[in-house]
Amino acid sequence: MKMLPEPIRWNGTSVEILDQRKLPDAVEYINCANVEHLANAIETLAVRGAPAIGIAAAWGIVLADRRGESIYPAIERLRKTRPTAINLFWALDRMASVSDYELEAKKIQNEDIENNRKIGEHGEKFLPNESVVITHCNAGALATGGWGTALGIVRSAREAGKNVKIFACETRPLFQGARLTAWELERDGFDVTLICDGMAAYLMRKQKIDAVLTGADRIAANGDAANKIGTYSLAVNAKAHGIPFFVAAPKSTFDLSIPDGNAIPIEERCGDEIRFLPGGQTVPAEIKVWNPAFDVTPFELISAIITEDGIFEPK
Amino acid sequence: MKMLPEPIRWNGTSVEILDQRKLPDAVEYINCANVEHLANAIETLAVRGAPAIGIAAAWGIVLADRRGESIYPAIERLRKTRPTAINLFWALDRMASVSDYELEAKKIQNEDIENNRKIGEHGEKFLPNESVVITHCNAGALATGGWGTALGIVRSAREAGKNVKIFACETRPLFQGARLTAWELERDGFDVTLICDGMAAYLMRKQKIDAVLTGADRIAANGDAANKIGTYSLAVNAKAHGIPFFVAAPKSTFDLSIPDGNAIPIEERCGDEIRFLPGGQTVPAEIKVWNPAFDVTPFELISAIITEDGIFEPK
Repeated sequence: MKMLPEPIRWNGTSVEILDQRKLPDAVEYINCANVEHLANAIETLAVRGAPAIGIAAAWGIVLADRRGESIYPAIERLRKTRPTAINLFWALDRMASVSDYELEAKKIQNEDIENNRKIGEHGEKFLPNESVVITHCNAGALATGGWGTALGIVRSAREAGKNVKIFACETRPLFQGARLTAWELERDGFDVTLICDGMAAYLMRKQKIDAVLTGADRIAANGDAANKIGTYSLAVNAKAHGIPFFVAAPKSTFDLSIPDGNAIPIEERCGDEIRFLPGGQTVPAEIKVWNPAFDVTPFELISAIITEDGIFEPK
Repeated sequence: MKMLPEPIRWNGTSVEILDQRKLPDAVEYINCANVEHLANAIETLAVRGAPAIGIAAAWGIVLADRRGESIYPAIERLRKTRPTAINLFWALDRMASVSDYELEAKKIQNEDIENNRKIGEHGEKFLPNESVVITHCNAGALATGGWGTALGIVRSAREAGKNVKIFACETRPLFQGARLTAWELERDGFDVTLICDGMAAYLMRKQKIDAVLTGADRIAANGDAANKIGTYSLAVNAKAHGIPFFVAAPKSTFDLSIPDGNAIPIEERCGDEIRFLPGGQTVPAEIKVWNPAFDVTPFELISAIITEDGIFEPK
């Protein structure tokens, strides 16, 4: 098996962030030597994916401590980077409760990979020997410590001898499904086909799809799950076509303090993410745009939430 | 009211095609002086939209005749340009049955505008005084003789004193909803908001949407309707959210020779339309892509088909 991409590396003095904004054109690391630099990398999506954001933030606390700074301003700064993924707040709370920061950050990172492996083992049992799945955004090695949640299931299925074909939704506006998932899976030897988000429903109608697999950014107590915008549409369509819809996420993605998805804060990002493309634009700047970065899939549409501790069936 | 864009103009010796590939950056006409040039303009989407393709093809026959050529090779060439929109074949059949080609092409073009007006009058009755609608791709002035089918309904509603707010799905891969619909509506003074295709379902869940309005490229005898890829996903979501889903199309879009949508030929276009963006690309050329240009919405999901002759309820 080829080496999986490593989204976050600690080199002993600074945090190296694989710049996911430049993928797949260039594989380049940004060297973050202070908290502000790291916070900026999270805000501008150089690193993204709920578990990876948590890990990166944890290393931010190590950075502050190494520089002889109090960790509390660092925590405050990092908490403000992005509002939806609960893993960010979970990791920072964990860092605030320990004294050996480097040890804890390492634990958070390594545990995430172990949890991904367990998610993969639990989840792959849902896939037949010859499977066709649809995924959205990137819930792969790039979004986590290094194996993946939704894509971890696909990897574990392959380890179990199964043959999994993946359709990756390109995931507008930022093309994480194209730039990250198709790239990550193709590099890893999978049979992956890229589609536009609006094609998934028609694909479900045209050929047998065994499962829709996605990650999550925050899961409420009742099982409602926030994930990348476009996920909810896939879930509605999966139900309409009788296809199981699975959410794969570590327990650190659960927010039991909120009863349901209505209370999950949904980040709205700048409309220029829709108006502008790499090297061009689709509409003039005066065109109004609505750009929610996430949506919420209600628990009724989720067949199972696959965690490191096993399977939860919200219904 | 501002002048609506004219997608096709006959200048007495050649066919002027508004180059929709360049919108909204530039408003430029291509001068087509022979059939091959015009066929190429249709194939490469300089002119697109089922009724507009039919009109353009009709003028192609005038071009052939003016050049002293037999019209039959022209008909053969033009029939091969695009497979899905039946209006193309309908217009060419009509041209083949007359002797005064210029008169017939003019009639096809003018009747289309009149039919759009009637579609608008029939359709606007479904919209409340304060309406919010979702549309997909471009079924506007640019796709027709000059008023629009789905957008004709919006225009007629405004003439009837109603206030219509429109959410335009950008319509990947070729962004007709962004480049054409948002541009056409904003220029015409409408309150239009651009969204990515994957956002429509979440929008339906978050706020009251009165209708989804789309055009069609071919409608089978049972009411199944082919339209731009992504339409079917909208229809499934509209049903799941209790939102009426309307197809607006002239009768020339019906193909009563085929019983249902399974027999509608669906054009598959080059994967590079997905891989490449204006000025950049999302994935390397070796990534596999599936790129159907249309999908089929089954009649059960269609609340009504709005034609110049009135309303058909497929159910």
